[in-house]
Amino acid sequence: MEKFWDKYPEIKTELQSVVDLMKTSTKCRDKIVETSIHDLINSGGKMLRPAFVLISSKFGDYKEERAHAMAAVVELIHMATLVHDDVIDDSKLRRGQETIQSKYGKDYAVYIGDFLFCVCFKILASTSSLSSIKIDSNSMSRICLGEIDQMNSRFTKNISVKKYLSRISAKTAELFSLALYSGAAESGCDEKINKLFWNIGHNIGMAFQIIDDILDYTGNEKSIKKTAANDLRQGIYTLPVIYAIQSNSSSLEPILMKDSYSEEDIKVIVSLVNKEGGVKKSTRLAERYTEKAFKLIKRLPENEYKYILTNITKELLQRSY
Amino acid sequence: MEKFWDKYPEIKTELQSVVDLMKTSTKCRDKIVETSIHDLINSGGKMLRPAFVLISSKFGDYKEERAHAMAAVVELIHMATLVHDDVIDDSKLRRGQETIQSKYGKDYAVYIGDFLFCVCFKILASTSSLSSIKIDSNSMSRICLGEIDQMNSRFTKNISVKKYLSRISAKTAELFSLALYSGAAESGCDEKINKLFWNIGHNIGMAFQIIDDILDYTGNEKSIKKTAANDLRQGIYTLPVIYAIQSNSSSLEPILMKDSYSEEDIKVIVSLVNKEGGVKKSTRLAERYTEKAFKLIKRLPENEYKYILTNITKELLQRSY
Repeated sequence: MEKFWDKYPEIKTELQSVVDLMKTSTKCRDKIVETSIHDLINSGGKMLRPAFVLISSKFGDYKEERAHAMAAVVELIHMATLVHDDVIDDSKLRRGQETIQSKYGKDYAVYIGDFLFCVCFKILASTSSLSSIKIDSNSMSRICLGEIDQMNSRFTKNISVKKYLSRISAKTAELFSLALYSGAAESGCDEKINKLFWNIGHNIGMAFQIIDDILDYTGNEKSIKKTAANDLRQGIYTLPVIYAIQSNSSSLEPILMKDSYSEEDIKVIVSLVNKEGGVKKSTRLAERYTEKAFKLIKRLPENEYKYILTNITKELLQRSY
Repeated sequence: MEKFWDKYPEIKTELQSVVDLMKTSTKCRDKIVETSIHDLINSGGKMLRPAFVLISSKFGDYKEERAHAMAAVVELIHMATLVHDDVIDDSKLRRGQETIQSKYGKDYAVYIGDFLFCVCFKILASTSSLSSIKIDSNSMSRICLGEIDQMNSRFTKNISVKKYLSRISAKTAELFSLALYSGAAESGCDEKINKLFWNIGHNIGMAFQIIDDILDYTGNEKSIKKTAANDLRQGIYTLPVIYAIQSNSSSLEPILMKDSYSEEDIKVIVSLVNKEGGVKKSTRLAERYTEKAFKLIKRLPENEYKYILTNITKELLQRSY
């Protein structure tokens, strides 16, 4: 978290309170549960989603307690999905640290995810409104169905761009939308503003995920191999691969159909994905979402937080790729 | 469900509406998710918990929609925990049917449990109150921590009776309490009545679970072996075993410490548990909880539902053991 928010000291200070709230809300008599959650909180995620809640909250009648609570909830939902995803993926590392399921077993990880969901609703019931809980639980079930979609489309080589977009819309954009929407809604903004925030979140989230998927096929060779290989081994084909298959399926499919990939195979796949224009086309689509996000942000009322949101979005979406 | 409720046609008809509500609330575009949940709904659980919600609702200003919604929520929470428990236990069968995790894999089972939790809160947010959601999420996190407790105390041979009671209080009694409490609370009963229902639920739930655990060590030989063996193999020591160890640890411990149990071992354990008074002492404790439940039920205002609750409790807790 540290560096990213240095330029925005007000947000940074408030995010620290959100972290504190997350920690007190997840205190529990089982010390493994508590420690593993606190470790995850401390492991240095960017806290993007809670920051979005805080920023959009400032567009209305800002109530600190409600805004912080909602910010904590959004990050805890994110954490719960990460913990359960790691169970599914059998992941060993998350944010450079050993995952809960690797350290304490999948049993702990399943229950810790469940416990985090419960904590979210406990916080919401104490500080929020029924309408917020409705929106939150709807988003959560969409995220959950999105994960199931991703699981189902594993090893499907003819997955469409449309299907990919609907998957990342649920998996990533939904929570960005929820964050920006709920901040505004909780501080009593006009429903038009809330919906505008929802759409901004959607476009930032879509661009963010596409860029993340592009970075697996660019950047330095070592980092590429690791993440691209991870996704490929699980049969998750992201946008660059999908575009490359569409452009020339005969070059990629034989190698993708292998039972396991050697270091050399990954190198070949990465190079084919680049050669067949998978990266280029994906970049163009990410740019379209980014432009749309900026266009929508422009429609927000003028204030310093609009400026901060613009800047953060630039930093996030104009990473070199 | 069928037979158990035949004597109470009003409850039976209402439970059918609750089942319908559970089915419509869990409709979803992923047909595996929907089918596996509907199969579980159809698999013939007694629907005890939702029936408790309906019965206690009748003590106040009965609002059908709210009562049915709360009844559906309580059963869906129960189902979500069953699905996640089966992931932990690697169980193959549930209510005589193949479990979700055995049929579709643990990945589906994790997400289906999550989806069920989301559906609960969606229903609550549409039909209930913030105070109910608070109570529900508190109960859910206690249930979750109870499961973690059970997991942690596996293969602990010196587990105390107190620890066992606290485990089943969270694992079983909590949801019985929640069911009876929320029905009353949702229909606007006096908080004194709601709390009385909470305590009734606690005592019924405690007796119910102890009896369930006793039945593993009595009854016909075939059924004993299967369930007792299951728990023992997972290192879950229930009350009859705990009492037996307390009475004579030297006879039981050597055999419990084996890496795996043969059919013959299970026979010996079952017979030792009976011989050392484990079943007898457990029965006495179950009787105490049962008596307490009846004593508390007597304090409820007079009406036909008090009569029904008394009768159901008799049928549940005075099973031959």
